[in-house]
Amino acid sequence: MPTAPTSELRRVFALRVREQRKRLHISQEELADRAQVHRTFIGAVERAETNVSIDNIARISAALVVEAWELLKE
Amino acid sequence: MPTAPTSELRRVFALRVREQRKRLHISQEELADRAQVHRTFIGAVERAETNVSIDNIARISAALVVEAWELLKE
Repeated sequence: MPTAPTSELRRVFALRVREQRKRLHISQEELADRAQVHRTFIGAVERAETNVSIDNIARISAALVVEAWELLKE
Repeated sequence: MPTAPTSELRRVFALRVREQRKRLHISQEELADRAQVHRTFIGAVERAETNVSIDNIARISAALVVEAWELLKE
């Protein structure tokens, strides 16, 4: 079925990032370091506040050792 | 396994968007209209030239009547 509204996909990504980060037992700061993004950025991602780009989705998924698509699946 | 470099995810998205657009027999212009993005933007996406945002991934996937994650899977 078609994707739900814009904010819904952000919410899915936010939940999946947090879930996988906790599975790896790493902090937001540690994830930021691994993904080479700013420390405050991961917090904003996990609150679905930021319109994250595909390049940063790639960085974050690599740092979380999962495929990007897995972080966007409900 | 971890995601490949940044540009790789753009390339996957570009290929999937084009593939699904052709499956629906619609032009880049028609897809742009349906997704409510600029007409030149879809061309840039399909050439993997643009660092597309998650909100635009959501718009494009909804316009293509697929889930967003399906457009990011190799």
